[in-house]
Amino acid sequence: MAKMIYAGKAKQLWTTDDEQLLRVVYTNQATALNGKRKDQISGKGELNNQISTLIFEYLSAHGIPTHFVKKLSATEEIVKRVKIIPLEVVTRNLGAGHFASRFGVKEGLKFSQPVEELYYKSDELADPFMNESQAAALGIANAEEIKQIWEISRQVNQLLSSLFAEVGLDLVDFKLEFGKTATGEIILADEFSPDNCRLWDQKTKQHMDKDVFRRDLGDLAPIYQEVLRRLTTKLGA
Amino acid sequence: MAKMIYAGKAKQLWTTDDEQLLRVVYTNQATALNGKRKDQISGKGELNNQISTLIFEYLSAHGIPTHFVKKLSATEEIVKRVKIIPLEVVTRNLGAGHFASRFGVKEGLKFSQPVEELYYKSDELADPFMNESQAAALGIANAEEIKQIWEISRQVNQLLSSLFAEVGLDLVDFKLEFGKTATGEIILADEFSPDNCRLWDQKTKQHMDKDVFRRDLGDLAPIYQEVLRRLTTKLGA
Repeated sequence: MAKMIYAGKAKQLWTTDDEQLLRVVYTNQATALNGKRKDQISGKGELNNQISTLIFEYLSAHGIPTHFVKKLSATEEIVKRVKIIPLEVVTRNLGAGHFASRFGVKEGLKFSQPVEELYYKSDELADPFMNESQAAALGIANAEEIKQIWEISRQVNQLLSSLFAEVGLDLVDFKLEFGKTATGEIILADEFSPDNCRLWDQKTKQHMDKDVFRRDLGDLAPIYQEVLRRLTTKLGA
Repeated sequence: MAKMIYAGKAKQLWTTDDEQLLRVVYTNQATALNGKRKDQISGKGELNNQISTLIFEYLSAHGIPTHFVKKLSATEEIVKRVKIIPLEVVTRNLGAGHFASRFGVKEGLKFSQPVEELYYKSDELADPFMNESQAAALGIANAEEIKQIWEISRQVNQLLSSLFAEVGLDLVDFKLEFGKTATGEIILADEFSPDNCRLWDQKTKQHMDKDVFRRDLGDLAPIYQEVLRRLTTKLGA
């Protein structure tokens, strides 16, 4: 019988009859401030599942190894079971959010080359920022694994910066997670949705991502809907 | 006429008649919690000047490029004028202090290889932890400069871990600062004293550094005096 093995802030993971596959259920929950603020946003689970499916299919088609197998229903997908590396892998093309406040720079600062950051996935410790030397010392990922993670991340950044630019959006920053397969291969896991990235409309500079919720800028669902509409127009349904 | 060009938490920098040289004055001030807690500790300036002089002379004798020129008086020294790179360069051989609380590990955790960290020197921003990609993106130091900084730091760690071990002390962690000369050479600057490192007595595990002040473990001056005594016994006055 299917068992829930993980309940995250916006997703659940369930076992399936095939022990190498898991079922992901996208929920409508939105959180901010490390989970201190919570809300239910009707339609969000469905929208993120659709957006993430489009993105993961696009990345797979362009040679990125991912955990994605297929979309199962409006709010569910099937993924390969992997051992998640407990790192949030962040790439920034423009300075925004925490980066801007941490280093006292204006939002929108353009970097000559992308900024790359790791955070230790730990609810208890509030996901602290960490560097590669710390990750290696704590046995979270060794230098070779981190090298592979950045190689994939850089390809993802190139592919998605171009893709979003074609639909009038700047990919400001994004968070990825990676997992290790039984054979030791490192592949892209988790999701890619406006919950985990920043997208700014190139013309209006409007926020088209979870900052709309974090900063109380209006209704989230119509914004995610618009992101989905643009991607669908570009990539097909 | 001599002008004070910098007043730090525990040191002042003054110009001299030679524009390529500066005079450092060690004060008795001790601070904790990013300067929120302050105290005057009689003798500290003198002790740090003596300890730092011994250490910088030792490092210079072993090929490390430094700003140190000579000790001038009990609380003063002469150094080369450099453009300080605004980074605190931290090396950790054992997990302690912020590292232990940040990552939820026990103090004294031994790393298989030293942990290397950068902090952005900014009182306004409270010296935030940063990684190399951020330092490069913000124009603080480029990849080549950071590489040189770590090469010198690793040599300093080897030299000083051995030196302190010979006087019964574990060099737990330490902070260095670097400057650039007019010709672009990167050299070790600032000081090396129990204000900027952690030293644990190998037998008793007693704290022999500024943690005695930070954690209210007793009088600081006799502790620094003991560190100086051991170094002097080893290195000569």
